[in-house]
Amino acid sequence: MTSPVAIGVDIGGTKVAAGVVDPKGSVLATARRLTPAEDWQAVRQTVAEAVLELVPQARSRGLEPVAVGIGAAGLVDAGRSRVVFAPHLALQGEPIAGAVSLDVGMPVVIENDANAAAWAEYRFGAGQRQARLVCVTLGTGIGGGMVNDGEVQRGQWGMAGEFGHMVFVPDGHPCECGNRGCLEQYASGNVLGRRARELAAAGAPEVVPLLERAGGDPAALLGPLITVAAQDGDQLAIELFGQVGHWLGIGLANIAAALDPGMFVIGGGVSDAGELLLGPARRSFAQCLLGRSLRPPAEITRVALGPAAGLIGAADLALQPPAQPGRGAEDGR
Amino acid sequence: MTSPVAIGVDIGGTKVAAGVVDPKGSVLATARRLTPAEDWQAVRQTVAEAVLELVPQARSRGLEPVAVGIGAAGLVDAGRSRVVFAPHLALQGEPIAGAVSLDVGMPVVIENDANAAAWAEYRFGAGQRQARLVCVTLGTGIGGGMVNDGEVQRGQWGMAGEFGHMVFVPDGHPCECGNRGCLEQYASGNVLGRRARELAAAGAPEVVPLLERAGGDPAALLGPLITVAAQDGDQLAIELFGQVGHWLGIGLANIAAALDPGMFVIGGGVSDAGELLLGPARRSFAQCLLGRSLRPPAEITRVALGPAAGLIGAADLALQPPAQPGRGAEDGR
Repeated sequence: MTSPVAIGVDIGGTKVAAGVVDPKGSVLATARRLTPAEDWQAVRQTVAEAVLELVPQARSRGLEPVAVGIGAAGLVDAGRSRVVFAPHLALQGEPIAGAVSLDVGMPVVIENDANAAAWAEYRFGAGQRQARLVCVTLGTGIGGGMVNDGEVQRGQWGMAGEFGHMVFVPDGHPCECGNRGCLEQYASGNVLGRRARELAAAGAPEVVPLLERAGGDPAALLGPLITVAAQDGDQLAIELFGQVGHWLGIGLANIAAALDPGMFVIGGGVSDAGELLLGPARRSFAQCLLGRSLRPPAEITRVALGPAAGLIGAADLALQPPAQPGRGAEDGR
Repeated sequence: MTSPVAIGVDIGGTKVAAGVVDPKGSVLATARRLTPAEDWQAVRQTVAEAVLELVPQARSRGLEPVAVGIGAAGLVDAGRSRVVFAPHLALQGEPIAGAVSLDVGMPVVIENDANAAAWAEYRFGAGQRQARLVCVTLGTGIGGGMVNDGEVQRGQWGMAGEFGHMVFVPDGHPCECGNRGCLEQYASGNVLGRRARELAAAGAPEVVPLLERAGGDPAALLGPLITVAAQDGDQLAIELFGQVGHWLGIGLANIAAALDPGMFVIGGGVSDAGELLLGPARRSFAQCLLGRSLRPPAEITRVALGPAAGLIGAADLALQPPAQPGRGAEDGR
């Protein structure tokens, strides 16, 4: 007797990670590849190879892969068949799910990576049993996902949860999306480096220790370096996380005004700074929350599953039955 | 044989309106009272009297009232039993639903008025058959409600949909909620009068026609007067609606980034200006919408049911079975 399982795939800007995910959310075997940059057929082939490499490994453990879930950093269509917008992937608009399905002989769905991470945290991580969970991932940009009453909220056209592109400062900093002043321009990993480089360009003395870590090269002042510096006690790095956390908390208060979730789970590379980020975020959240004297503040906590969350969530979602519309939505009562 | 129906009650700042609502959302008989300002027991008594006045009227039509739904402009607890915050009502924190239930001998629920209006538009109005509907009401402030897959989205503590208190301009105009720069300070009816009065105080010539309508009294420059002036072609009034509509459109784009609804229905007194408001809102929405080349813009339309929407929605919600949690939310799969 073999047990049915799914294989999850996370297509990142630099690497493809695939894994066999058991029904408890554990990753049993993994395969990794570099992400091809040339075209989507190369991405398709890489994903299919990684999946097919894992099939015999799963069977050797008495598990039978029956579905594949792909997580990708981009906007995904409501039918979960293609990435419609992904500036850092050679995938845009292509029918990746159907193509990989032909290659591997299993049904394949594709999910926004933050939606997949939100689902993984709901099922197996920090947000278990939460009726209204919001996941925010802070990396180069800001991703987001929501799980309400046990359903990922994808929206009408698959584009819900893009909290990073809520306009936050009218006529503020230009954003890659074409707008100005998006939250992503104030509370993402990019901001850490941008501010440090601005200070370096201005010759500010407080940035000297960070510059030394960067070998004197302002272009090397990037999020991960600043994260390590903050953990080592660098005052400017700590202050930069404090600023990003401050804006994050206001952004979460805005989300709470609209959605009133019970918990926020914060992931992505920037969340590696832990309390250096979440402490300031909790403070500004509590200060800005509408009805702050009338409800407890929603919990703000780190993801529990780490970088594998997207892969785990995508795999588990591939095994879920299609969403059941709630009462009334179809019959138009 | 009598058919079961509900009685809906709308508790406004100045008047209480009650009505027998039939299963098709029609209001068959109404009762009105002034809203008592002194204390909640007076409000309770007024609501109960209006309901009891309607019971025989319903029965004379072969309808048996079996439940009461109250809509009120305030934050309502998740249990729908009390208003936890309502600056303009003498109701705050009091167990109004249970008290009225004792008085009238029927189950009573209380709903945020914008949630009730959203539900009414979903069931009987402009948003029928919409799987993801957002209702925004623009009056003195901004109210909001959401219906997803046939369920009103109330949030963890009953406070979802408060779009008017999303911080929009950091360190912007002070808001009654204690924050600064809330959307409500840029896109509500209050803003129309505030801007006109600012211009009057500055002696701006373009405000003279509006001032003449106001009998020369700047304090009389209020939303309804400016609405009529705009409809009459007053250039400044039209421009003020254009500004409010512009901000509203950006606010709706922010909501769309988070929620990706299929339709927005816009209600409240400010929406009486129709296309003078919605035209500019649609334009700035289309300019700001994330993924604007990848999805159609959500429809932005006026409410169909007018001021009775809250009463109708509250009555109909009182007849709905309790929400069924989706799969997984309770069993913590």
